[in-house]
Amino acid sequence: MEDLAKTYFFEGITDRERAIFEGAITLAAIRHQFVGVPICKDGKIVKTLEAAIKKTMLLQPFKKDVIVKIDYDLIKGEKKHPYDYESLKARHMDIRVIVQYGRANAILRMRYVPELDFNLMYVEKAEEVSST
Amino acid sequence: MEDLAKTYFFEGITDRERAIFEGAITLAAIRHQFVGVPICKDGKIVKTLEAAIKKTMLLQPFKKDVIVKIDYDLIKGEKKHPYDYESLKARHMDIRVIVQYGRANAILRMRYVPELDFNLMYVEKAEEVSST
Amino acid sequence: MEDLAKTYFFEGITDRERAIFEGAITLAAIRHQFVGVPICKDGKIVKTLEAAIKKTMLLQPFKKDVIVKIDYDLIKGEKKHPYDYESLKARHMDIRVIVQYGRANAILRMRYVPELDFNLMYVEKAEEVSST
Amino acid sequence: MEDLAKTYFFEGITDRERAIFEGAITLAAIRHQFVGVPICKDGKIVKTLEAAIKKTMLLQPFKKDVIVKIDYDLIKGEKKHPYDYESLKARHMDIRVIVQYGRANAILRMRYVPELDFNLMYVEKAEEVSST
Repeated sequence: MEDLAKTYFFEGITDRERAIFEGAITLAAIRHQFVGVPICKDGKIVKTLEAAIKKTMLLQPFKKDVIVKIDYDLIKGEKKHPYDYESLKARHMDIRVIVQYGRANAILRMRYVPELDFNLMYVEKAEEVSST
Repeated sequence: MEDLAKTYFFEGITDRERAIFEGAITLAAIRHQFVGVPICKDGKIVKTLEAAIKKTMLLQPFKKDVIVKIDYDLIKGEKKHPYDYESLKARHMDIRVIVQYGRANAILRMRYVPELDFNLMYVEKAEEVSST
Repeated sequence: MEDLAKTYFFEGITDRERAIFEGAITLAAIRHQFVGVPICKDGKIVKTLEAAIKKTMLLQPFKKDVIVKIDYDLIKGEKKHPYDYESLKARHMDIRVIVQYGRANAILRMRYVPELDFNLMYVEKAEEVSST
Repeated sequence: MEDLAKTYFFEGITDRERAIFEGAITLAAIRHQFVGVPICKDGKIVKTLEAAIKKTMLLQPFKKDVIVKIDYDLIKGEKKHPYDYESLKARHMDIRVIVQYGRANAILRMRYVPELDFNLMYVEKAEEVSST
């Protein structure tokens, strides 16, 4: 698909940089949009939320795939009483965003990293396929 | 289900007041949580998002039903190019939250009201069934 | 100020119910809007965020006051390295929303309740001043 | 400041790519976190919100500056009645995020682009200072 926005980017941006840029936007969008949603240890609810995050976020430009895993072993509630649920936290999620832009592709990830005690976003892989 | 939180509320709150309170929380939660999600004129994506909002928000206390309609006639994008989508707005939604608390039930609603040019939240109905 | 929205509410809603309704909306709006904002143990940053929450949320209808306390003893980061900060959580906040509607006023509150292990929203007080 | 997270990124990522990555995260975080906040044509409220966005988002790693302009000519409400305000939209904002990472720096931007009818995020500039 044609990139109507290309002229707004600085000249000299590489395809790999652009792929990283587009993936980072989606990672941060997921984190800041969905943290706070009510959630509990119910597979059907969790699956529906994962599907909604995936399908809506795939709309953002140049996404090839968005893989969202909510680890419900970490979630407390089983809805035995009205207050037995909790809110989605970044810590509950392991997300991979796969981007293709021009000749480049990139895998971006967010997951909780115990060593840093931080929900880290990082670039797992980025490559530009050389034209031959 | 037993209301573990009852003692934190002021003495003398009626069941009808409590039902209104619980419904208002869910209306505002939906509005401030989900506005901004990427969306386009694609029935499958819209249905998945509606289902995720409904199922997660039903976890909040004393909800009997949560009815979420996203009017996709109002949505612009058909995803013909990478930037052909938009963000969910309060204006796109018509929401009903149905609450039952004790002997009371209430219907709370949010929808765009053209006369006010405002996405209004209001109490459509609230009643307390008299014990006999 | 005149209530342009009054006609949309069911007939027979009391001023006290309306005050509770308006307060509940603001409590839930604060929770679902601001949870996730980056934060650290820095008084100036915390004060600025508290002020922004207060001033913007006072715009919602019939608010007399919005009191936001972020307990930064609970916040980890002191920004000694790039990842030394955290995200605002409901647990960090103690919020009071004070509403006046017609002859009624109400105090709504959200705070972490250890006994429930829950960030509870509740109605602390509501009263209708009798006309004489 | 030392980059504790460096080992999680793929080997071979350039400083310029990392600067772009970190900036993109903050742009998207601002958009998905703050869209929906109540706002009106009141300079003091707008300034306080701009300051809160700036100060909290500067906490994210490797930010040199975050410049947030909310164009309140675009905002409708002047608070003449209880419903005379609106919600912050991406369209109201012009944001620049300035990042420094290693030998690279980058300027990332989000603004409404009329030609695309889209609130575009893009990389305005990125450069790596060559060591000599």
